[in-house]
Amino acid sequence: MTPPTRYRDAGVDIDAGEEAVRRIQKAVHSTFGPHVATEIGRFAGATVIPGGDPNLLIVASMDGVGTKLKIAAMMERYDTVGQDLVNHCVGDIGVHGSEPLFFLDYVAMGHLVPTTVEKIVEGLAIACRQNGCALLGGETAEMPGIYHGDDFDLAGCIVGTVKRQEFVDGTSIAIGDVLLGFPSTGMHTNGYSLARRVLFDNGELKVEDRLPGTKLTLGDALLAVHRSYLPVLRSLKGIMNGAAHITGGGLPGNVNRMLPKGTNARIHVDRWPVPPIMKFIGEIGEVPRDDIYRAFNMGIGLVVAVASERVQEAVKATSNEAIKIGEIVSGTGTVELVGDPVW
Amino acid sequence: MTPPTRYRDAGVDIDAGEEAVRRIQKAVHSTFGPHVATEIGRFAGATVIPGGDPNLLIVASMDGVGTKLKIAAMMERYDTVGQDLVNHCVGDIGVHGSEPLFFLDYVAMGHLVPTTVEKIVEGLAIACRQNGCALLGGETAEMPGIYHGDDFDLAGCIVGTVKRQEFVDGTSIAIGDVLLGFPSTGMHTNGYSLARRVLFDNGELKVEDRLPGTKLTLGDALLAVHRSYLPVLRSLKGIMNGAAHITGGGLPGNVNRMLPKGTNARIHVDRWPVPPIMKFIGEIGEVPRDDIYRAFNMGIGLVVAVASERVQEAVKATSNEAIKIGEIVSGTGTVELVGDPVW
Repeated sequence: MTPPTRYRDAGVDIDAGEEAVRRIQKAVHSTFGPHVATEIGRFAGATVIPGGDPNLLIVASMDGVGTKLKIAAMMERYDTVGQDLVNHCVGDIGVHGSEPLFFLDYVAMGHLVPTTVEKIVEGLAIACRQNGCALLGGETAEMPGIYHGDDFDLAGCIVGTVKRQEFVDGTSIAIGDVLLGFPSTGMHTNGYSLARRVLFDNGELKVEDRLPGTKLTLGDALLAVHRSYLPVLRSLKGIMNGAAHITGGGLPGNVNRMLPKGTNARIHVDRWPVPPIMKFIGEIGEVPRDDIYRAFNMGIGLVVAVASERVQEAVKATSNEAIKIGEIVSGTGTVELVGDPVW
Repeated sequence: MTPPTRYRDAGVDIDAGEEAVRRIQKAVHSTFGPHVATEIGRFAGATVIPGGDPNLLIVASMDGVGTKLKIAAMMERYDTVGQDLVNHCVGDIGVHGSEPLFFLDYVAMGHLVPTTVEKIVEGLAIACRQNGCALLGGETAEMPGIYHGDDFDLAGCIVGTVKRQEFVDGTSIAIGDVLLGFPSTGMHTNGYSLARRVLFDNGELKVEDRLPGTKLTLGDALLAVHRSYLPVLRSLKGIMNGAAHITGGGLPGNVNRMLPKGTNARIHVDRWPVPPIMKFIGEIGEVPRDDIYRAFNMGIGLVVAVASERVQEAVKATSNEAIKIGEIVSGTGTVELVGDPVW
């Protein structure tokens, strides 16, 4: 019998992350010139080019794959994590209305294995081609003594552009707007430390074990590739008032990032099914509900806010994939999860 | 008695790095659209913005600090590595004539310590302010199971701009051009795996031990901050035909990156003194000459090629700091090191 597993038990301290963000604000702000167009805490930063077109914003975001890399190493399957990373980054600038322009990667290993690097970069290139962005550069670092065994790290930076009048930052979100959710294709890039703790450390399962209720192994389910929301976001240009990419945490820590002052996002968690892998981890780990919603996307990878009179148009534009998961209500910038999950 | 230490013995296999670069070329190329303006292997990539000003290039580069981070952790001094990283990146786009616009960082740790993140970001912010670029975004990742103890990783991406006609890519370098070298401020960000192996593993020295011939401890000498060459590069705008930042390796693996076909760079290594820290590592590790020149900058962090008739102008423009270290000769794209080092 293992006790219930909280996210913190898995070695991930979201509070420490938030404290770090608070501590760096002043230093980060001290570097902002008059050209920077965004505040800290958005999904991406934006700036104009001094002396350039004042109506063109350059939008950029940096991200990593997290400990999904551990699953890739366990499976010795290195061609999917690059796709995860690019699609993750594309979504982070896409929620601001930006089209990707180029991507740069950082791969670090303890002992450089050229064939592994090749697989990783092939994955990056697949997703770069799919999203129409150039893999403009990168760094491959061999760092003995920091990375051990098959461990490696993979991070990347995306840069895109958007016209200033098409920049989406949630300021036009209003009370009464409808929240549309779009299905994720698995855990994307968050919650893997919790998953590993529950499944492999405490549960003593193996990546080859079957995921109950599916034909997939646990490894296959965990490595499912992060989808690109770029086609969805393109279809919603001019329709959406705000968008949140559910990355680096769950719905509560991401949907709030698009909210204007005086609003809450009310999400009815009974309106879509929880994916089998998250259900299974939640059950065998007895993960408290707060923790699982903080760690996992729970089946929704993108949330957009749309004026109620444009919902039908938005649903049609996105091939009826949108789920009406909630609405904007009066509040203080937080996310209310109401109802019971459909397990 | 330890045997001579080769760079490979320290766990860094430059040949494997070069093989990895060869293996990824095709995949990287497959992502290049018509807007990409550079080839693989330069210090930075460049592209125009589709539909934007065709005479404006966006220049970008990704890099890490390498195992200098291990020294920072040993010294518990976290406010300098951020400066190293930004100045490193600024040089990588600066050698192409680009001004920095913004920077994004990636910090990964096994257990997130907010005060350590704060110190790292303060270092980044210091150098961002000095170089006039915004710290536009970043990612702080907590990755238990990948990073152990005090280990962490730090990488970053810089984005800048340059007018197309001011883009420097070495194509105007000609036989007879003079190579000017600019002093480094220590090991910058390369050769730390070799240094650690020689000093701390084999030599059983400590970071508090004195570096012979100086008033510095080994730790202080190893952590010396990477200078920014941006002021030098700005002064040489319109004067230099090409520039090479000595990063990620030594003179032989970097100066070649600016050479046009049919040329070699001949460098007279007797024209400047080897810094005490590199001399000491070379001596106690009995590091073969080829290896030490591949691993360390050996005292020169920036090399520029200037037409012989403009040398005086270039030297004056850079406050007489330039050292005439060699010349461009007929050849096949390699770097010839001639003469004996001044130990």
